Amino acid sequence: MSGHFRPVALAHASRLINHGPTVLVTSAHAGRRNLMAAAWSMPVEFTPPRVAVVIDKRTWTRELVAASGAFALCLPGPTLADLSYAVGSESGRDVDKFARHGIVATSGPVLGMPVLEAGCAAWLECRLIPETHTEEAYDTCFAEVVAAAADERIFSGGRWSFRDDNIELQTIHHLGAGRFVRAGGVIEARKP
Amino acid sequence: MSGHFRPVALAHASRLINHGPTVLVTSAHAGRRNLMAAAWSMPVEFTPPRVAVVIDKRTWTRELVAASGAFALCLPGPTLADLSYAVGSESGRDVDKFARHGIVATSGPVLGMPVLEAGCAAWLECRLIPETHTEEAYDTCFAEVVAAAADERIFSGGRWSFRDDNIELQTIHHLGAGRFVRAGGVIEARKP
Repeated sequence: MSGHFRPVALAHASRLINHGPTVLVTSAHAGRRNLMAAAWSMPVEFTPPRVAVVIDKRTWTRELVAASGAFALCLPGPTLADLSYAVGSESGRDVDKFARHGIVATSGPVLGMPVLEAGCAAWLECRLIPETHTEEAYDTCFAEVVAAAADERIFSGGRWSFRDDNIELQTIHHLGAGRFVRAGGVIEARKP
Repeated sequence: MSGHFRPVALAHASRLINHGPTVLVTSAHAGRRNLMAAAWSMPVEFTPPRVAVVIDKRTWTRELVAASGAFALCLPGPTLADLSYAVGSESGRDVDKFARHGIVATSGPVLGMPVLEAGCAAWLECRLIPETHTEEAYDTCFAEVVAAAADERIFSGGRWSFRDDNIELQTIHHLGAGRFVRAGGVIEARKP
């Protein structure tokens, strides 16, 4: 962990993807590694922190995840929109996308998954919960978050803070075909 | 369907929640109806359009969904942030939340689920795909979208269009504790 990244308490980990950001799914096994973009992920539980993410069964990422039983979700900011679209449109089966795109990854503290920090708001290291039926029928992989960290300039004390001075860390949300919207414009609902 | 709402082709329905908006889950059975907010939903397939949504098994909504085998997802805009927070914080077991909050709902065309249009960007009428294990273990309900519609001022031709003149229809994304971010600030990624 480097720069502005700080550990996130596991009880707060699901909040990192509560608002539906696009994520980069990173994976590694036996000396190979990969990353892909995924628009389809969500928390399913706060405690223990559990998530679901859709990873197409034809992808190299799925093979690595099945082999290692692990992956990480990294939350790219606006400066990584081009990269997110690129790594969602090519396979890592025959090429190391990290090398191709000059991506620097460090190792997650629990499972050793590659995690990205530069240009990202946060990452979550996840242990797969094998669910053969939903993986086959819906490409939906369930996992438990075992470590998480975030850039303290946008997430600290278990809370997101979207401000004018941290736009480059704000999460991006994929509309389709390479068009993203940035989360921003905070709305504070009246307490019921 | 009224006002600016137009049918969305089923092949485009999953795009409506591709970017992770907060949704209102509506349900009805045997003369009772309910709505609640859910931050946790995602598409799992484009064709046929299928979604997953987390609905706590202790909720009245889950009982209605189990009984009817159906629900709808409605996408509130910023003017419904207070309502979204309110209906996510109270149970409809003993009160009709539509009446309490003065919410006008119409009936979905295929399953008759209550759907909201005023203040919303879109709705999806969904038929539950019974999956006992994931419903129990992760409160995760899978469903197939059987009808969808959107306000043509923000979604038409199968595409979202977030602009300065439709801010009040832009989707909201829950950060937690009643704080939402509005999607906006379109980023067009370079074609890979």
